[in-house]
Amino acid sequence: MRNIKLILKFVGTDFHGWQIQKNGITVQELITETIKKVTGEKEISVIGCGRTDSGVHAEAYVANFMTQSAIPAERFPYALNVHLPASVVCISASDENEDFHAGKSAISKKYTYSILNAPIRDPFLEPYVHFVKYPLDFEAMKKAAMFFVGTHDFAGFASAGYSVKTTIRTIYSLEITKNDDIIRIEVTGNGFLYNMVRIIAGTLICVGNGRINADDIPEIIKSCKREKAGITAPAKGLCLTEVYYE
Amino acid sequence: MRNIKLILKFVGTDFHGWQIQKNGITVQELITETIKKVTGEKEISVIGCGRTDSGVHAEAYVANFMTQSAIPAERFPYALNVHLPASVVCISASDENEDFHAGKSAISKKYTYSILNAPIRDPFLEPYVHFVKYPLDFEAMKKAAMFFVGTHDFAGFASAGYSVKTTIRTIYSLEITKNDDIIRIEVTGNGFLYNMVRIIAGTLICVGNGRINADDIPEIIKSCKREKAGITAPAKGLCLTEVYYE
Repeated sequence: MRNIKLILKFVGTDFHGWQIQKNGITVQELITETIKKVTGEKEISVIGCGRTDSGVHAEAYVANFMTQSAIPAERFPYALNVHLPASVVCISASDENEDFHAGKSAISKKYTYSILNAPIRDPFLEPYVHFVKYPLDFEAMKKAAMFFVGTHDFAGFASAGYSVKTTIRTIYSLEITKNDDIIRIEVTGNGFLYNMVRIIAGTLICVGNGRINADDIPEIIKSCKREKAGITAPAKGLCLTEVYYE
Repeated sequence: MRNIKLILKFVGTDFHGWQIQKNGITVQELITETIKKVTGEKEISVIGCGRTDSGVHAEAYVANFMTQSAIPAERFPYALNVHLPASVVCISASDENEDFHAGKSAISKKYTYSILNAPIRDPFLEPYVHFVKYPLDFEAMKKAAMFFVGTHDFAGFASAGYSVKTTIRTIYSLEITKNDDIIRIEVTGNGFLYNMVRIIAGTLICVGNGRINADDIPEIIKSCKREKAGITAPAKGLCLTEVYYE
């Protein structure tokens, strides 16, 4: 059996996230059905690098699947893209060792959260950014951002709904940049709790609008209380940018 | 009566162009109804800077309307944007002389046609670019582009369907640039025939893929025959970028 790794790019707007579920179309379901069409195999199990929420985008989502197909790896993107809708594309495919697992083999991930901070919204950016019309204090957000870096118990930065063994995670870097009206928050970490990046983004927005003091962030993290942190920023501003493997 | 000029930005994907028609929702209809809501006036006539085709976008579409409303001009964008859908926004409004006419007062317009020339499409850019996967000869396109500049009879670069007094138009500039995988064609002219920019873009694509020789462009223009020119490139790659007034 071959083990094929796929890198997918998708606009999440119309999907109920990655993982197959009954309530709506998901990327996993779409990719699984497309691989079946292309390989002619009836049973295909596609492993993803993680759940992504409904509406979240990906620049480079990683998945893998076992197959007996003889299609050369470099032909897979073209074969799959013929059948995929405009919102999803396979950008690369490669043969991996049989123990490669898109989820378990990942050592870290990078997410980007994009905010349009301008008096007037932008229809062209609309699907990809969270629009905030009141001016945000970028310097305060920058100051607050650095407190998230490191190993912390992020229990206060998780939505209820998924059970996990531990709520301790390591954030390797959290960079925040401003380019014209776009504020981008780039977070790299060894793993993220449910809604964690969106709650961090929402908390930084609350720092930007003065509802939370940047200097209080260490205490808010330490409290492990969801209600101390900021809002959960909308899914559409979030994008899985990169997944790192050994 | 006041004469208000509006600058609108819209993603044309879901609209049947600018001009009110029976078959589907248009930007003119949407703006007219929104102005009625905001001013409370029952009769509002919105004049546009020109027809835009179904699916064409605008960075800065100009329109004007007469009103007795006392709303300060600079408040209009905010008042309108509350009611407008995500795909349309009013970016500015100003009081103009009573003889200002968004269409007749315009002295020139700039359109931008965007092509994604890459082996694999991009879901994020999908609504805004025409995807061409075979490599285009950019140098040949650049050479061909310069032949369009000047005053010509562009009868061969117009789709049937609208009667005009003359098919002579002046193109002031036609710039073509390549940035990574994006080829952009920027055309500024005193007026454009029906589908003219899309046929110029389609002709340049045909030059890029070798079906038309760059050196044949002057002869193709001179022929005034639609069938000598290239394809009509898809609407979604086209954007009205700027309208110029005295």
